[in-house]
Amino acid sequence: MEKSALYHRPDSEMAYLYTKNDFHIRLRTKHDDVQKVELLYGDPYGMKVNEKAQGSWDYQIKEMKVIATTKTHDYWQASVSMPLRRLQYAFHVYGRDGEEAFYDDRHICSYSQAAIDNLAAFRMPYFHEIDRINPPVWVKETVWYQIFPERFANGNKANDPKGTLPWDSAEPTSTNFFGGDLQGIIEHLDYLKDLGINGLYLCPIFYAHSNHKYDTIDYLAIDPAFGDKATFKKLVDEAHARGIRVMLDAVFNHLGDTSMQWQDVIQKGKESRFADWFHIRKFPVSYEKTANNELAKNITYDVFANTPHMPKLNTANPQVQDFLLEIATYWIKQFDIDAWRLDVANEIDHHFWRRFYQATHALKPDFYVLGEVWHSAQEWLSSHEFDAAMNYPFTELISECFVKKTLTASEMVSALNEQLMLYRRQTNEVMFNAMDTHDTARLLTLCQGDQRLQKQILTFMFMQIGAPCLYYGTEVGMAGGYDPGCRACMIWDTAKQNRQMLQFVRQLVHFRRNYAAVLSQGQLIWKLVDDQTGLIILQRKWKEQQITAIFNHSQQQQLLPQTKGQLLFSQGWEQTTKVLKAEGFMILK
Amino acid sequence: MEKSALYHRPDSEMAYLYTKNDFHIRLRTKHDDVQKVELLYGDPYGMKVNEKAQGSWDYQIKEMKVIATTKTHDYWQASVSMPLRRLQYAFHVYGRDGEEAFYDDRHICSYSQAAIDNLAAFRMPYFHEIDRINPPVWVKETVWYQIFPERFANGNKANDPKGTLPWDSAEPTSTNFFGGDLQGIIEHLDYLKDLGINGLYLCPIFYAHSNHKYDTIDYLAIDPAFGDKATFKKLVDEAHARGIRVMLDAVFNHLGDTSMQWQDVIQKGKESRFADWFHIRKFPVSYEKTANNELAKNITYDVFANTPHMPKLNTANPQVQDFLLEIATYWIKQFDIDAWRLDVANEIDHHFWRRFYQATHALKPDFYVLGEVWHSAQEWLSSHEFDAAMNYPFTELISECFVKKTLTASEMVSALNEQLMLYRRQTNEVMFNAMDTHDTARLLTLCQGDQRLQKQILTFMFMQIGAPCLYYGTEVGMAGGYDPGCRACMIWDTAKQNRQMLQFVRQLVHFRRNYAAVLSQGQLIWKLVDDQTGLIILQRKWKEQQITAIFNHSQQQQLLPQTKGQLLFSQGWEQTTKVLKAEGFMILK
Repeated sequence: MEKSALYHRPDSEMAYLYTKNDFHIRLRTKHDDVQKVELLYGDPYGMKVNEKAQGSWDYQIKEMKVIATTKTHDYWQASVSMPLRRLQYAFHVYGRDGEEAFYDDRHICSYSQAAIDNLAAFRMPYFHEIDRINPPVWVKETVWYQIFPERFANGNKANDPKGTLPWDSAEPTSTNFFGGDLQGIIEHLDYLKDLGINGLYLCPIFYAHSNHKYDTIDYLAIDPAFGDKATFKKLVDEAHARGIRVMLDAVFNHLGDTSMQWQDVIQKGKESRFADWFHIRKFPVSYEKTANNELAKNITYDVFANTPHMPKLNTANPQVQDFLLEIATYWIKQFDIDAWRLDVANEIDHHFWRRFYQATHALKPDFYVLGEVWHSAQEWLSSHEFDAAMNYPFTELISECFVKKTLTASEMVSALNEQLMLYRRQTNEVMFNAMDTHDTARLLTLCQGDQRLQKQILTFMFMQIGAPCLYYGTEVGMAGGYDPGCRACMIWDTAKQNRQMLQFVRQLVHFRRNYAAVLSQGQLIWKLVDDQTGLIILQRKWKEQQITAIFNHSQQQQLLPQTKGQLLFSQGWEQTTKVLKAEGFMILK
Repeated sequence: MEKSALYHRPDSEMAYLYTKNDFHIRLRTKHDDVQKVELLYGDPYGMKVNEKAQGSWDYQIKEMKVIATTKTHDYWQASVSMPLRRLQYAFHVYGRDGEEAFYDDRHICSYSQAAIDNLAAFRMPYFHEIDRINPPVWVKETVWYQIFPERFANGNKANDPKGTLPWDSAEPTSTNFFGGDLQGIIEHLDYLKDLGINGLYLCPIFYAHSNHKYDTIDYLAIDPAFGDKATFKKLVDEAHARGIRVMLDAVFNHLGDTSMQWQDVIQKGKESRFADWFHIRKFPVSYEKTANNELAKNITYDVFANTPHMPKLNTANPQVQDFLLEIATYWIKQFDIDAWRLDVANEIDHHFWRRFYQATHALKPDFYVLGEVWHSAQEWLSSHEFDAAMNYPFTELISECFVKKTLTASEMVSALNEQLMLYRRQTNEVMFNAMDTHDTARLLTLCQGDQRLQKQILTFMFMQIGAPCLYYGTEVGMAGGYDPGCRACMIWDTAKQNRQMLQFVRQLVHFRRNYAAVLSQGQLIWKLVDDQTGLIILQRKWKEQQITAIFNHSQQQQLLPQTKGQLLFSQGWEQTTKVLKAEGFMILK
C-alpha cells in the first residue's frame, strides 16, 4: 500500500458537520491501491471500563465508501452521528496488497493492537452548530439567470443615456449604450418565470460611467440610466412575488479613479482624509502611461490588475470596512435583496469577509454570499466568508472536454471529482455553476455555433451538483465572443430568436426544478466513463429517486446497451435502432 | 515518482506570510522519492507580452529545499517576496526515477510546456497584513514557569483556608490545602528572575472551592485564599518590573455546578434566565449517579467529560459570549495581564474564539492566546483564534523516545517534524513546549528518578523550536505522579532542594535566554539521527549564529567524531577520551 498518499485533515472539508448531527469524514488514498477502509470512531471520553477514568477506548467500526475517484486518488467517506456530539476517530486501511495501515492524528503506521493502544485520535471535540458551514437551502434548488442590465431590455426610453443606439442596431463595444434598464427587467419577469428560473443575478446597477458599471462612482445610488430606487424596489418585490430571488454585484476590491475619494487623494496627497483608504506606496500618487490605457508602469499605489484607473481599497482600514458594510446592509434593509455576488473577492482580506458575512447574515439569516474566485476557494468556503464561489474550474473543465477536446471524458471526470473533494458537500450543493458569464465568451460561440453541442453541455451541467446559471440570451441562441462580444442586446424579436433552443432550455430548467431534491442533493455516481466509446453515464440518487443521464461525447454514434427507466427527454436517440448519435444524450428517471 | 503523495494546500500552513513580504511555500512529497523541486512563480497579472492583456505567463524559478523529513514524506520549502504583494505559483517536481511532474491548482500531471500553457496556478491573490498569522514576538524569546498557586509558596498566613496543613507536611491530595497564595509568588519573583525565566503561567486564581480552582464560582474575584486584587495587581507590576510576563488560566468551557447560574437552572428549569446558557436536552436537568462521583449516566445536559458537576456553557449564546468576554478583557484592562491560557479550548466553538481574540487584541496588540489542545490544532492556529497550543504531542513524542523507549530516535524525529509541518513557522516559534504540567506526571517521576535523564530531556526540549516551560519545582528536583501527585508543595528548604539540579536548570534557562535569537527563530537541522549508536546531533542556525547539540540516547557510551565549536555545557562528556556517556549531551556554539 502506498502510505505516503494517505491524507486526512481534521476540522476541514475532510471532517465536517453536514447537517446538525450528521458528521462526514473523508480519507484520501492512492487510486486503486486500497480495498477497504474502516473508520474507528467513538466518544473521546468513552472508555470500555466505564466506572473508572481509565481503560481502553470504546470504539465502533464503520466501513467507508469511495465517493469520488480521480486519476491519482480515491476518496473515501463515512457519515456518523454521535449522541454526545463529540467524536474521535482513526482509520484502518486495507491495501490491495494485503498490507494494513493505521492512520491517526500522529501516526501513519502498520495496523496492530499496539497502534490502537497507542492511539492519538483525530478529533472533532464538539459538534458546534454555530461553526457548521450552512449555506441557505434555497440556493441548491435555484436555477440562476444572469443579466447584464444595459443589454437585457429597455423598458423606459426616458432614462436612456445620451447617444443610446437603437436596440440591437450594432455590435456591442466597451463604450456603446443600448438603453437596457431595470424597467426592462420588470417587464420580462413573467418571461423569466415561464422559463422556470428562480434566481436573478444582476451585474452592477449602481451609478457608474461605463456600460458595465464595474467602475462604481456611488454604491448607494441606482445608475440613472437604469432607473431609480422605486423601480428597483418594484423589481425586487415583483421578482419575489414570482418566487424569484435577487442577487446584486458588489465591487469592493477597488474604486474607480473618478470617485470622490480617489480624486481627493490626487488633490491633497498625504493630507487627504482618504489617504489611508488605499494602498499607497508613495505620495503624490503617480504612474507611467503605456500605449495600453489599462496597463501602466511604476504605479505608486496598489491597483486591480495593472490598471491605474482602479485603485485598490485598503479593506484593513476600519473606516473602509464600515463604508462597505454600510452599503452591503443598505440594499438588504431597504430592498430585501437575497444575495451578493462579490467581484474580485479573492483579492480582499479574510478579515473583512468575515465581518461582511456577519453583517449580512445578522439581517437575513438565509442570505447567500457568492465570491468571484477562479481558483480553489477552500479558505473562503471553510469559515463563514462566502457560501460559494463562481465555479470557473468546473466551467473550464467541461469546456476542455466537450468543446476543446483537450481532456478526455475520464480526465474531465477525474478533475471534476477533484474539485468536488475540495469542499464540503453542502458547499458543493450551492456552488454557482455557469458555462458562460459576462467575463467569458458565450457557450454557443465556444461551440462554434453547434447548437446540439450547446444543448448537450447545458444538460450535462444541469445534471451536476451545484446551482446552474444561464447567461441571458443563451435560451434564444445568442452567440458572442469574449468581452465585449458576449454583452450583446438580448434578442426579443421572436423572428430572430432560436425558438427551438428556447423550448429546449425551458424544458431543461423545468426538469431541474421538477427534480430539485434529487438533482440538488442526490448522490452523484459516474456509472460509466468510457474514453473508447465516448459514453458517459451518470446518475443522481436521493432516497427513492433516481435520474440517469447518458451522453455520447464521441464523434460517432453509439449502440446503447439496454437502458432502464422512463425517458424524460433526449437528443439524437433512436429508440428503434438503440443508437445514440454523436452529441446525443438521454435523461431517464 | 509517486505523484499520489504530492500535497499542497494554498492559503494554509503550506502557503503563508511569515513576515510582511516573506511568503513561505511548502510541498509534501514521498520520502526519498524526489530529487529536486522547482517553484514556478510570478505575478498573477504578469504576462511576458506586457503591452497587451494577453501573452504567456512571466514566471521565475526558485529551487525549493527540504526543510523536514519524516518516515513517509519530505517537506520542501521556498520563500519568495513579491513587489506587488500578489502571487501565483506551481511546482515542477523532478523524481529520482527521472520522471518530471507538474502540479498546480487543478492538475497533477507530467511536466511539459503544454502543462505550463494550460496553467491553473495556485494563488495567493494579495498579501494581506491583517490576515497574517502574527503571534507576539516576545513569546518566542520567553522561558515560561508554570505555577499551581496553592502549592508554590505561602506568603500570607492570614488568608489560609480552614484546615490548611503545614507546608509540605503531607502528600498532596485532591482536597487538602497548604496555603499557597499570590503573596508567596511575589516574594519569590527575585528567585524566578534569578532562575532566568521571563514568563509566569498561573493556574486558575479565581474564586472556587477546590484547591485547583478549575471549578470557577466567580471569574471576577481573586480566590480569598490566594489574596485580593491589590495583591494580584502588585504581582503583575512586580513581575513586569522584572521583565516577566504574566499568563492567567481561563476556564470557559464549563461552569461549576455550584455556580449561581447552574443553581438557578436547577431551581427554575426552563424558566431560568440561564436556561440557554447551557446545552440542556431535557428539563428538569438530571443524571444517574454511579460509584464514581465524576462519572454519571444519562445526563440530560452536556458536560465536560462525563462529570455532571461541570455543565458545559453554550458559547453560541451571545449573552454567554459577552459574559466571558467581559471577564477576558477585565483582567487585561485592570491588571495588564499579558496572556490567557484557555482550558479545554478545543471544545469551545471557533466563532467564540475569534471574538475572544479580537476583544483581547483590541486592548493589547501583543497579547498571547494559548489554547489547551492535545491533538492537531491547525484550525485554531490558522485564523486568529489562538497564537499557539499547549504542545502535548511534542511532550509525548519526546517522552516516548527518551523515557519509554517505545520510539526510536529516528521515529521521534520523524514525528516531531510531522508536528512542525502542521503549522506555520511563526506559530511553531511560540508553541508552548512543556515536558510536564499540572495535568501530567512530573518528568522526574516519568524518568523514575533518573536526574541525568531529566537533564538530558530538558536540554533536548530547550534546543527545540517553541517556547519552553518549566513546571514549578522541576528545578529543585521535585517528583510526583499524575494528579494529585504532581501538585506537591514547592520545596523551599534548601537542605531538601536538589541544588545541583537547580544550578543546572538555571544554566539551561540562561543558555536559552542568552542565545534567544538563534534558539527561537533559527533553522532546525537534524545533522545526525542514528538508531544504531543512539546519537542525535541537531543544530540551530540563524544568520552567523550556530548552536549544536549532541545527545547520546543509547544505553552505551559512544565515541564521538571530532566535534567543532566551543563547548558551552555538557553531561557525561570526557574530553580526553572523546567519549559521550549514556544519557550524555553536549552543547557547542
